[in-house]
Amino acid sequence: MISLCYLNNRFLKYDEARLHISDLGLQRGYSIFDYFLEMEGRIPFLDDYLDRFYNSAKLLNLEVPLTRELMKEKIAHLLQENKLGTSGIKLLLTGGYSEDLYSPSTPNFMILNLPAIHQPGDLGDGVKLLLLDYRRHIPEVKTTFYLPSIALFPKMKEYGAIEVLYHHNGLISETTRANFFLVKDGKLITAASGVLKGITRKYVLQVAKEIMPVEEREVRLEELWECDEAFITGTSKHVLPVIKVEERMIGNGKPGEGTSAISQAFERLFESQGF
Amino acid sequence: MISLCYLNNRFLKYDEARLHISDLGLQRGYSIFDYFLEMEGRIPFLDDYLDRFYNSAKLLNLEVPLTRELMKEKIAHLLQENKLGTSGIKLLLTGGYSEDLYSPSTPNFMILNLPAIHQPGDLGDGVKLLLLDYRRHIPEVKTTFYLPSIALFPKMKEYGAIEVLYHHNGLISETTRANFFLVKDGKLITAASGVLKGITRKYVLQVAKEIMPVEEREVRLEELWECDEAFITGTSKHVLPVIKVEERMIGNGKPGEGTSAISQAFERLFESQGF
Repeated sequence: MISLCYLNNRFLKYDEARLHISDLGLQRGYSIFDYFLEMEGRIPFLDDYLDRFYNSAKLLNLEVPLTRELMKEKIAHLLQENKLGTSGIKLLLTGGYSEDLYSPSTPNFMILNLPAIHQPGDLGDGVKLLLLDYRRHIPEVKTTFYLPSIALFPKMKEYGAIEVLYHHNGLISETTRANFFLVKDGKLITAASGVLKGITRKYVLQVAKEIMPVEEREVRLEELWECDEAFITGTSKHVLPVIKVEERMIGNGKPGEGTSAISQAFERLFESQGF
Repeated sequence: MISLCYLNNRFLKYDEARLHISDLGLQRGYSIFDYFLEMEGRIPFLDDYLDRFYNSAKLLNLEVPLTRELMKEKIAHLLQENKLGTSGIKLLLTGGYSEDLYSPSTPNFMILNLPAIHQPGDLGDGVKLLLLDYRRHIPEVKTTFYLPSIALFPKMKEYGAIEVLYHHNGLISETTRANFFLVKDGKLITAASGVLKGITRKYVLQVAKEIMPVEEREVRLEELWECDEAFITGTSKHVLPVIKVEERMIGNGKPGEGTSAISQAFERLFESQGF
Protein backbone atom coordinates (compact mmCIF):
# COMPACT_ATOMS: atom_id res chain seq x y z
CA MET A 1 0.00 0.00 0.00
CA ILE A 2 1.39 3.38 -1.01
CA SER A 3 0.52 6.12 1.43
CA LEU A 4 -0.12 9.73 0.62
CA CYS A 5 2.34 12.36 1.77
CA TYR A 6 2.54 16.14 1.63
CA LEU A 7 5.43 17.91 -0.11
CA ASN A 8 5.73 21.64 -0.76
CA ASN A 9 2.08 22.51 -0.83
CA ARG A 10 0.65 19.42 -2.46
CA PHE A 11 -0.45 15.92 -1.58
CA LEU A 12 1.12 13.12 -3.58
CA LYS A 13 1.89 9.41 -3.39
CA TYR A 14 4.89 8.65 -1.19
CA ASP A 15 6.68 6.69 -3.91
CA GLU A 16 6.47 9.68 -6.23
CA ALA A 17 7.84 12.21 -3.73
CA ARG A 18 11.21 13.49 -4.91
CA LEU A 19 13.45 16.47 -4.29
CA HIS A 20 15.98 18.02 -6.61
CA ILE A 21 19.49 17.06 -5.53
CA SER A 22 20.35 20.69 -4.72
CA ASP A 23 18.29 20.43 -1.54
CA LEU A 24 20.34 21.77 1.37
CA GLY A 25 19.21 18.97 3.69
CA LEU A 26 20.84 16.51 1.32
CA GLN A 27 23.86 18.61 0.36
CA ARG A 28 24.73 20.14 3.75
CA GLY A 29 22.57 18.49 6.41
CA TYR A 30 20.69 21.74 6.94
CA SER A 31 17.43 20.21 8.03
CA ILE A 32 15.19 19.65 11.03
CA PHE A 33 12.36 17.26 11.68
CA ASP A 34 9.95 15.94 14.25
CA TYR A 35 8.17 12.65 14.66
CA PHE A 36 5.06 11.53 16.47
CA LEU A 37 2.49 8.75 16.44
CA GLU A 38 -1.08 8.45 15.27
CA MET A 39 -3.39 6.17 17.21
CA GLU A 40 -6.66 5.61 15.36
CA GLY A 41 -6.76 9.08 13.91
CA ARG A 42 -5.58 10.92 17.00
CA ILE A 43 -2.12 12.12 18.03
CA PRO A 44 -1.01 12.08 21.67
CA PHE A 45 0.57 15.38 22.80
CA LEU A 46 0.41 16.87 19.28
CA ASP A 47 0.83 20.44 20.50
CA ASP A 48 4.00 19.54 22.38
CA TYR A 49 5.51 18.09 19.21
CA LEU A 50 4.47 21.07 17.13
CA ASP A 51 5.93 23.45 19.74
CA ARG A 52 9.25 21.65 19.43
CA PHE A 53 9.17 21.56 15.62
CA TYR A 54 8.44 25.26 15.27
CA ASN A 55 11.13 25.99 17.86
CA SER A 56 13.73 23.89 15.99
CA ALA A 57 12.89 25.81 12.81
CA LYS A 58 13.17 29.16 14.54
CA LEU A 59 16.57 28.36 16.05
CA LEU A 60 17.91 27.59 12.56
CA ASN A 61 16.30 30.62 10.87
CA LEU A 62 14.02 28.35 8.83
CA GLU A 63 10.48 29.42 8.12
CA VAL A 64 7.80 26.74 8.41
CA PRO A 65 5.54 27.31 5.39
CA LEU A 66 2.36 26.37 7.30
CA THR A 67 0.70 28.00 10.27
CA ARG A 68 -0.02 25.65 13.14
CA GLU A 69 -3.68 25.53 12.16
CA LEU A 70 -2.92 24.63 8.54
CA MET A 71 -0.33 22.11 9.71
CA LYS A 72 -2.99 20.33 11.74
CA GLU A 73 -5.36 20.38 8.77
CA LYS A 74 -2.79 18.82 6.44
CA ILE A 75 -1.91 16.15 8.99
CA ALA A 76 -5.59 15.37 9.58
CA HIS A 77 -6.15 15.04 5.83
CA LEU A 78 -3.23 12.60 5.51
CA LEU A 79 -4.49 10.45 8.39
CA GLN A 80 -7.98 10.39 6.93
CA GLU A 81 -6.77 9.41 3.46
CA ASN A 82 -4.17 6.86 4.58
CA LYS A 83 -6.21 5.25 7.37
CA LEU A 84 -3.18 3.39 8.73
CA GLY A 85 -4.65 3.08 12.24
CA THR A 86 -1.30 3.12 13.98
CA SER A 87 1.23 5.20 12.09
CA GLY A 88 4.19 7.53 12.34
CA ILE A 89 4.04 11.15 11.20
CA LYS A 90 7.29 12.84 10.25
CA LEU A 91 7.61 16.56 9.58
CA LEU A 92 10.81 17.47 7.71
CA LEU A 93 11.98 20.97 6.87
CA THR A 94 15.18 21.69 4.93
CA GLY A 95 17.17 24.75 3.87
CA GLY A 96 15.62 24.46 0.40
CA TYR A 97 17.09 24.29 -3.09
CA SER A 98 20.47 25.99 -2.95
CA GLU A 99 22.07 27.46 -6.06
CA ASP A 100 25.58 27.34 -4.58
CA LEU A 101 24.83 24.12 -2.62
CA TYR A 102 25.65 26.02 0.58
CA SER A 103 23.32 28.97 1.20
CA PRO A 104 19.75 28.45 2.43
CA SER A 105 16.81 29.52 0.24
CA THR A 106 13.04 28.89 0.47
CA PRO A 107 12.66 25.78 2.66
CA ASN A 108 11.39 22.46 1.38
CA PHE A 109 8.79 20.97 3.69
CA MET A 110 7.20 17.55 3.82
CA ILE A 111 4.84 15.55 5.99
CA LEU A 112 5.28 11.78 5.78
CA ASN A 113 2.76 9.34 7.16
CA LEU A 114 4.03 5.78 7.29
CA PRO A 115 3.05 2.56 9.04
CA ALA A 116 4.48 2.17 12.54
CA ILE A 117 4.50 -0.50 15.19
CA HIS A 118 3.59 0.64 18.66
CA GLN A 119 3.38 -1.67 21.65
CA PRO A 120 4.08 0.50 24.65
CA GLY A 121 3.83 -0.46 28.28
CA ASP A 122 5.43 -3.88 27.93
CA LEU A 123 8.81 -3.53 29.62
CA GLY A 124 10.01 -6.93 28.41
CA ASP A 125 13.47 -8.05 29.48
CA GLY A 126 15.03 -4.63 28.97
CA VAL A 127 17.39 -3.40 26.26
CA LYS A 128 21.11 -2.96 25.66
CA LEU A 129 22.97 0.21 24.70
CA LEU A 130 26.34 1.08 23.25
CA LEU A 131 28.42 4.06 24.40
CA LEU A 132 29.77 6.83 22.18
CA ASP A 133 31.84 9.92 22.98
CA TYR A 134 29.66 12.46 21.20
CA ARG A 135 27.52 15.47 21.94
CA ARG A 136 24.84 16.73 19.58
CA HIS A 137 25.32 20.30 18.33
CA ILE A 138 22.53 22.68 19.46
CA PRO A 139 20.94 19.70 21.24
CA GLU A 140 17.53 21.33 21.68
CA VAL A 141 17.13 21.31 17.89
CA LYS A 142 15.99 18.05 16.31
CA THR A 143 18.40 17.91 13.37
CA THR A 144 18.62 15.01 10.93
CA PHE A 145 22.27 14.21 11.76
CA TYR A 146 22.17 10.57 12.91
CA LEU A 147 25.43 9.59 11.23
CA PRO A 148 27.35 8.97 14.49
CA SER A 149 24.90 6.23 15.50
CA ILE A 150 24.24 4.78 12.05
CA ALA A 151 28.00 4.36 11.60
CA LEU A 152 27.84 2.02 14.63
CA PHE A 153 25.18 -0.30 13.16
CA PRO A 154 27.63 -3.21 12.75
CA LYS A 155 28.70 -2.93 16.41
CA MET A 156 25.07 -2.53 17.54
CA LYS A 157 24.15 -5.77 15.80
CA GLU A 158 27.11 -7.52 17.39
CA TYR A 159 26.06 -6.40 20.88
CA GLY A 160 22.30 -6.64 20.33
CA ALA A 161 22.09 -2.95 21.26
CA ILE A 162 19.08 -0.89 20.19
CA GLU A 163 20.46 2.61 20.86
CA VAL A 164 23.72 4.45 21.43
CA LEU A 165 24.21 6.38 24.68
CA TYR A 166 26.13 9.64 24.19
CA HIS A 167 28.63 10.93 26.74
CA HIS A 168 31.20 13.68 26.47
CA ASN A 169 33.69 15.25 28.86
CA GLY A 170 32.58 12.73 31.46
CA LEU A 171 28.88 13.59 31.25
CA ILE A 172 25.97 11.51 29.96
CA SER A 173 23.43 13.27 27.76
CA GLU A 174 20.94 11.16 25.77
CA THR A 175 20.72 8.21 23.38
CA THR A 176 20.32 8.28 19.60
CA ARG A 177 16.54 8.61 19.68
CA ALA A 178 15.63 8.69 23.37
CA ASN A 179 16.20 10.41 26.70
CA PHE A 180 18.12 8.59 29.39
CA PHE A 181 17.32 8.18 33.11
CA LEU A 182 19.01 6.60 36.12
CA VAL A 183 17.47 5.42 39.38
CA LYS A 184 19.84 5.48 42.38
CA ASP A 185 18.94 5.18 46.06
CA GLY A 186 15.27 5.79 45.27
CA LYS A 187 15.92 8.97 43.27
CA LEU A 188 15.34 9.58 39.57
CA ILE A 189 18.24 11.31 37.81
CA THR A 190 18.45 12.72 34.27
CA ALA A 191 20.41 15.35 32.33
CA ALA A 192 18.95 18.83 32.82
CA SER A 193 20.38 20.29 29.62
CA GLY A 194 22.41 19.41 26.55
CA VAL A 195 19.69 17.04 25.36
CA LEU A 196 16.67 17.08 23.10
CA LYS A 197 13.74 17.76 25.38
CA GLY A 198 11.62 14.70 24.68
CA ILE A 199 7.86 14.91 24.93
CA THR A 200 7.76 11.52 26.68
CA ARG A 201 10.58 12.80 28.94
CA LYS A 202 8.41 15.76 29.92
CA TYR A 203 5.46 13.61 31.01
CA VAL A 204 7.64 10.92 32.59
CA LEU A 205 9.20 13.61 34.79
CA GLN A 206 5.73 14.88 35.62
CA VAL A 207 4.42 11.52 36.81
CA ALA A 208 7.72 10.44 38.41
CA LYS A 209 7.61 13.40 40.81
CA GLU A 210 4.62 11.72 42.48
CA ILE A 211 6.65 8.55 42.98
CA MET A 212 10.20 9.55 43.95
CA PRO A 213 12.49 12.58 44.21
CA VAL A 214 13.65 13.78 40.80
CA GLU A 215 17.04 15.36 40.06
CA GLU A 216 17.52 17.17 36.77
CA ARG A 217 21.25 18.00 36.67
CA GLU A 218 24.56 17.01 35.15
CA VAL A 219 24.94 13.22 35.13
CA ARG A 220 28.44 11.79 35.35
CA LEU A 221 29.37 8.70 33.34
CA GLU A 222 30.54 6.90 36.51
CA GLU A 223 27.00 7.17 37.93
CA LEU A 224 25.92 4.77 35.20
CA TRP A 225 28.04 1.99 36.62
CA GLU A 226 26.84 2.62 40.18
CA CYS A 227 23.10 3.06 39.58
CA ASP A 228 20.33 0.69 40.64
CA GLU A 229 18.25 1.01 37.47
CA ALA A 230 18.31 2.79 34.11
CA PHE A 231 15.73 3.38 31.42
CA ILE A 232 15.15 5.33 28.22
CA THR A 233 12.05 7.19 27.06
CA GLY A 234 10.80 8.03 23.60
CA THR A 235 7.73 8.55 21.46
CA SER A 236 7.57 4.94 20.22
CA LYS A 237 9.30 3.38 23.23
CA HIS A 238 7.50 5.11 26.10
CA VAL A 239 9.58 3.71 29.01
CA LEU A 240 12.13 0.97 28.25
CA PRO A 241 14.43 -0.51 30.93
CA VAL A 242 18.14 -0.61 30.16
CA ILE A 243 19.85 -3.72 31.48
CA LYS A 244 23.27 -3.60 29.81
CA VAL A 245 25.61 -0.93 28.42
CA GLU A 246 28.34 -2.33 26.18
CA GLU A 247 29.44 -5.40 28.20
CA ARG A 248 28.49 -4.17 31.65
CA MET A 249 25.31 -5.03 33.51
CA ILE A 250 23.21 -2.13 34.83
CA GLY A 251 21.91 -2.66 38.38
CA ASN A 252 21.07 -6.36 38.78
CA GLY A 253 20.57 -6.76 35.01
CA LYS A 254 16.77 -6.85 35.25
CA PRO A 255 14.07 -4.19 34.84
CA GLY A 256 13.76 -2.53 38.25
CA GLU A 257 10.86 -1.62 40.51
CA GLY A 258 11.31 2.15 40.15
CA THR A 259 11.29 1.86 36.36
CA SER A 260 8.20 -0.30 36.54
CA ALA A 261 6.34 2.14 38.80
CA ILE A 262 7.21 5.09 36.55
CA SER A 263 6.25 3.17 33.41
CA GLN A 264 2.87 2.28 34.88
CA ALA A 265 2.25 5.87 35.95
CA PHE A 266 3.12 7.12 32.47
CA GLU A 267 0.81 4.57 30.84
CA ARG A 268 -2.02 5.68 33.14
CA LEU A 269 -1.44 9.31 32.11
CA PHE A 270 -1.37 8.25 28.46
CA GLU A 271 -4.62 6.33 28.83
CA SER A 272 -6.21 9.21 30.71
CA GLN A 273 -5.80 11.26 27.51
CA GLY A 274 -8.02 8.69 25.81
CA PHE A 275 -5.34 6.56 24.15
CA MET B 1 23.30 26.73 -19.23
CA ILE B 2 22.24 23.44 -17.67
CA SER B 3 25.16 21.15 -17.02
CA LEU B 4 25.14 17.40 -17.22
CA CYS B 5 25.55 15.37 -14.05
CA TYR B 6 25.83 11.70 -13.18
CA LEU B 7 23.32 10.02 -10.88
CA ASN B 8 23.10 6.30 -10.10
CA ASN B 9 24.61 4.97 -13.28
CA ARG B 10 23.28 7.47 -15.77
CA PHE B 11 24.06 10.91 -17.14
CA LEU B 12 21.28 13.47 -16.99
CA LYS B 13 20.66 17.18 -16.93
CA TYR B 14 21.36 18.75 -13.54
CA ASP B 15 17.93 20.36 -13.31
CA GLU B 16 16.29 16.95 -13.77
CA ALA B 17 18.35 15.16 -11.11
CA ARG B 18 16.11 14.13 -8.25
CA LEU B 19 16.16 11.64 -5.40
CA HIS B 20 13.25 10.01 -3.66
CA ILE B 21 12.71 11.60 -0.26
CA SER B 22 13.57 8.33 1.53
CA ASP B 23 17.24 8.93 0.78
CA LEU B 24 19.24 8.45 3.96
CA GLY B 25 21.44 11.48 3.27
CA LEU B 26 18.33 13.62 3.40
CA GLN B 27 16.52 11.78 6.20
CA ARG B 28 19.44 11.05 8.54
CA GLY B 29 22.50 12.90 7.25
CA TYR B 30 24.15 9.60 6.35
CA SER B 31 26.24 10.87 3.48
CA ILE B 32 29.79 11.71 2.46
CA PHE B 33 31.20 13.81 -0.34
CA ASP B 34 34.31 15.29 -1.81
CA TYR B 35 34.96 18.34 -3.92
CA PHE B 36 37.70 19.38 -6.30
CA LEU B 37 38.32 21.74 -9.18
CA GLU B 38 38.66 21.35 -12.91
CA MET B 39 41.03 23.66 -14.74
CA GLU B 40 40.60 23.42 -18.50
CA GLY B 41 39.76 19.75 -18.47
CA ARG B 42 42.35 18.71 -15.90
CA ILE B 43 42.05 18.18 -12.13
CA PRO B 44 44.92 19.08 -9.77
CA PHE B 45 45.75 16.30 -7.29
CA LEU B 46 42.81 14.14 -8.45
CA ASP B 47 44.20 10.96 -6.93
CA ASP B 48 44.53 12.60 -3.52
CA TYR B 49 40.86 13.60 -3.60
CA LEU B 50 39.77 10.15 -4.75
CA ASP B 51 41.87 8.53 -1.99
CA ARG B 52 40.04 10.65 0.55
CA PHE B 53 36.60 10.00 -0.95
CA TYR B 54 37.05 6.21 -1.02
CA ASN B 55 38.43 6.36 2.52
CA SER B 56 35.43 8.38 3.80
CA ALA B 57 33.11 5.79 2.23
CA LYS B 58 35.01 2.88 3.77
CA LEU B 59 34.93 4.39 7.26
CA LEU B 60 31.12 4.65 7.04
CA ASN B 61 30.62 1.17 5.54
CA LEU B 62 29.37 2.69 2.27
CA GLU B 63 30.27 1.05 -1.01
CA VAL B 64 31.25 3.38 -3.85
CA PRO B 65 29.49 1.94 -6.91
CA LEU B 66 32.37 2.82 -9.27
CA THR B 67 35.93 1.59 -9.37
CA ARG B 68 38.52 4.34 -9.42
CA GLU B 69 39.08 3.79 -13.12
CA LEU B 70 35.37 4.06 -13.95
CA MET B 71 35.08 7.08 -11.67
CA LYS B 72 37.76 8.87 -13.67
CA GLU B 73 36.01 7.94 -16.92
CA LYS B 74 32.66 9.34 -15.75
CA ILE B 75 34.29 12.55 -14.52
CA ALA B 76 36.18 12.95 -17.80
CA HIS B 77 32.94 12.46 -19.75
CA LEU B 78 31.19 15.16 -17.68
CA LEU B 79 34.02 17.65 -18.17
CA GLN B 80 34.08 16.97 -21.91
CA GLU B 81 30.32 17.41 -22.28
CA ASN B 82 29.99 20.44 -20.01
CA LYS B 83 33.12 22.29 -21.15
CA LEU B 84 32.91 24.73 -18.24
CA GLY B 85 36.64 25.52 -18.31
CA THR B 86 36.89 26.26 -14.62
CA SER B 87 34.42 24.19 -12.63
CA GLY B 88 33.78 22.35 -9.39
CA ILE B 89 33.27 18.61 -9.25
CA LYS B 90 31.35 17.18 -6.32
CA LEU B 91 31.08 13.47 -5.54
CA LEU B 92 28.23 12.64 -3.16
CA LEU B 93 27.46 9.21 -1.73
CA THR B 94 24.52 8.56 0.59
CA GLY B 95 23.15 5.64 2.61
CA GLY B 96 20.57 5.06 -0.14
CA TYR B 97 16.81 4.72 -0.13
CA SER B 98 15.81 3.54 3.32
CA GLU B 99 12.54 1.71 3.91
CA ASP B 100 12.47 2.56 7.62
CA LEU B 101 14.14 5.98 7.05
CA TYR B 102 16.95 4.85 9.34
CA SER B 103 18.83 1.80 8.03
CA PRO B 104 21.29 2.09 5.13
CA SER B 105 20.62 0.25 1.87
CA THR B 106 22.24 0.43 -1.60
CA PRO B 107 23.98 3.83 -1.75
CA ASN B 108 22.89 6.64 -4.01
CA PHE B 109 25.83 8.19 -5.81
CA MET B 110 26.13 11.34 -7.87
CA ILE B 111 28.79 13.41 -9.60
CA LEU B 112 27.95 17.08 -10.01
CA ASN B 113 29.90 19.43 -12.26
CA LEU B 114 29.03 23.06 -11.74
CA PRO B 115 30.59 26.43 -12.60
CA ALA B 116 33.16 27.66 -10.08
CA ILE B 117 35.23 30.76 -9.61
CA HIS B 118 38.88 30.19 -8.91
CA GLN B 119 41.40 32.99 -8.45
CA PRO B 120 44.12 31.55 -6.27
CA GLY B 121 47.40 33.16 -5.36
CA ASP B 122 45.99 36.61 -4.69
CA LEU B 123 46.26 37.05 -0.94
CA GLY B 124 44.20 40.25 -0.94
CA ASP B 125 43.66 41.98 2.38
CA GLY B 126 43.03 38.78 4.27
CA VAL B 127 39.78 37.36 5.66
CA LYS B 128 37.81 37.31 8.90
CA LEU B 129 36.62 34.27 10.86
CA LEU B 130 34.06 33.57 13.55
CA LEU B 131 34.65 31.17 16.43
CA LEU B 132 32.47 28.21 17.37
CA ASP B 133 32.77 25.64 20.13
CA TYR B 134 32.34 22.53 18.00
CA ARG B 135 34.25 19.48 16.89
CA ARG B 136 33.34 17.45 13.84
CA HIS B 137 32.48 13.81 14.51
CA ILE B 138 34.92 11.36 12.85
CA PRO B 139 36.80 14.40 11.49
CA GLU B 140 38.76 12.45 8.87
CA VAL B 141 35.47 11.68 7.10
CA LYS B 142 34.07 14.41 4.84
CA THR B 143 30.43 14.26 5.91
CA THR B 144 27.74 16.66 4.65
CA PHE B 145 26.95 18.07 8.12
CA TYR B 146 27.56 21.82 7.76
CA LEU B 147 24.60 22.87 9.90
CA PRO B 148 26.72 24.34 12.73
CA SER B 149 28.26 26.89 10.35
CA ILE B 150 25.20 27.55 8.19
CA ALA B 151 23.24 28.35 11.35
CA LEU B 152 25.75 31.18 11.89
CA PHE B 153 25.17 32.82 8.47
CA PRO B 154 23.44 35.89 9.99
CA LYS B 155 26.37 36.45 12.37
CA MET B 156 28.90 35.83 9.58
CA LYS B 157 27.27 38.52 7.46
CA GLU B 158 27.30 40.90 10.41
CA TYR B 159 31.04 40.35 10.96
CA GLY B 160 31.99 39.99 7.30
CA ALA B 161 33.42 36.56 8.16
CA ILE B 162 33.89 33.96 5.42
CA GLU B 163 34.42 30.89 7.59
CA VAL B 164 33.89 29.61 11.14
CA LEU B 165 36.89 28.43 13.16
CA TYR B 166 36.11 25.40 15.34
CA HIS B 167 37.58 24.98 18.81
CA HIS B 168 36.67 22.57 21.58
CA ASN B 169 38.07 21.82 25.04
CA GLY B 170 40.54 24.64 24.50
CA LEU B 171 41.93 23.29 21.23
CA ILE B 172 41.64 24.70 17.71
CA SER B 173 40.89 22.23 14.93
CA GLU B 174 39.80 23.57 11.52
CA THR B 175 37.34 25.95 9.86
CA THR B 176 34.08 25.08 8.11
CA ARG B 177 35.69 24.31 4.77
CA ALA B 178 39.41 24.83 5.31
CA ASN B 179 42.43 23.89 7.40
CA PHE B 180 43.89 26.42 9.78
CA PHE B 181 47.52 27.44 10.36
CA LEU B 182 49.38 29.77 12.71
CA VAL B 183 52.80 31.34 12.29
CA LYS B 184 54.59 32.18 15.56
CA ASP B 185 58.25 33.06 16.04
CA GLY B 186 59.07 31.86 12.54
CA LYS B 187 57.40 28.46 13.01
CA LEU B 188 54.35 27.07 11.21
CA ILE B 189 51.83 25.41 13.54
CA THR B 190 48.71 23.38 12.68
CA ALA B 191 46.51 20.73 14.26
CA ALA B 192 47.99 17.24 13.79
CA SER B 193 44.70 15.37 14.19
CA GLY B 194 40.99 15.89 14.74
CA VAL B 195 40.69 17.61 11.36
CA LEU B 196 39.82 16.73 7.79
CA LYS B 197 43.15 16.15 6.09
CA GLY B 198 42.97 18.73 3.33
CA ILE B 199 44.72 18.09 0.04
CA THR B 200 45.91 21.71 -0.06
CA ARG B 201 47.01 21.27 3.59
CA LYS B 202 49.15 18.31 2.53
CA TYR B 203 51.02 20.23 -0.15
CA VAL B 204 51.25 23.42 1.90
CA LEU B 205 52.97 21.44 4.65
CA GLN B 206 55.28 19.92 2.05
CA VAL B 207 56.44 23.27 0.65
CA ALA B 208 56.43 25.04 4.04
CA LYS B 209 59.04 22.62 5.39
CA GLU B 210 61.54 24.18 2.97
CA ILE B 211 60.76 27.64 4.38
CA MET B 212 60.37 27.30 8.16
CA PRO B 213 60.10 24.69 10.92
CA VAL B 214 56.68 23.00 10.95
CA GLU B 215 54.87 21.76 14.06
CA GLU B 216 51.91 19.42 13.63
CA ARG B 217 50.48 19.08 17.14
CA GLU B 218 47.63 20.18 19.40
CA VAL B 219 46.98 23.91 19.00
CA ARG B 220 45.59 25.77 21.99
CA LEU B 221 43.01 28.52 21.49
CA GLU B 222 45.19 31.03 23.38
CA GLU B 223 47.91 30.59 20.75
CA LEU B 224 45.56 32.25 18.28
CA TRP B 225 45.65 35.51 20.21
CA GLU B 226 49.44 35.43 20.56
CA CYS B 227 50.43 34.41 17.02
CA ASP B 228 52.19 36.57 14.43
CA GLU B 229 50.18 35.38 11.42
CA ALA B 230 47.34 32.99 10.60
CA PHE B 231 45.98 31.56 7.35
CA ILE B 232 43.58 28.97 6.03
CA THR B 233 43.98 26.54 3.14
CA GLY B 234 41.45 24.91 0.88
CA THR B 235 40.79 23.60 -2.60
CA SER B 236 39.27 26.84 -3.89
CA LYS B 237 41.12 29.16 -1.50
CA HIS B 238 44.65 27.80 -1.76
CA VAL B 239 46.29 30.00 0.93
CA LEU B 240 44.24 32.84 2.45
CA PRO B 241 45.57 35.09 5.24
CA VAL B 242 43.38 35.50 8.33
CA ILE B 243 43.50 39.03 9.75
CA LYS B 244 40.65 39.00 12.26
CA VAL B 245 38.79 36.45 14.41
CA GLU B 246 35.49 37.73 15.79
CA GLU B 247 36.48 41.24 16.92
CA ARG B 248 40.16 40.59 17.58
CA MET B 249 42.99 41.37 15.23
CA ILE B 250 45.41 38.55 14.36
CA GLY B 251 49.09 39.59 14.40
CA ASN B 252 49.29 43.14 13.05
CA GLY B 253 46.02 42.76 11.13
CA LYS B 254 47.72 42.39 7.76
CA PRO B 255 48.77 39.38 5.67
CA GLY B 256 52.22 38.37 6.97
CA GLU B 257 55.54 37.57 5.33
CA GLY B 258 55.52 33.91 6.34
CA THR B 259 52.05 33.44 4.85
CA SER B 260 53.15 35.17 1.69
CA ALA B 261 56.26 33.00 1.31
CA ILE B 262 54.26 29.81 1.85
CA SER B 263 51.54 30.95 -0.56
CA GLN B 264 54.11 31.67 -3.26
CA ALA B 265 55.80 28.31 -2.74
CA PHE B 266 52.45 26.53 -2.98
CA GLU B 267 51.56 28.39 -6.18
CA ARG B 268 54.93 27.40 -7.66
CA LEU B 269 54.22 23.74 -6.83
CA PHE B 270 50.74 24.07 -8.32
CA GLU B 271 52.11 25.58 -11.51
CA SER B 272 54.84 22.96 -11.71
CA GLN B 273 52.05 20.40 -12.11
CA GLY B 274 51.05 22.26 -15.28
CA PHE B 275 48.20 24.37 -13.83
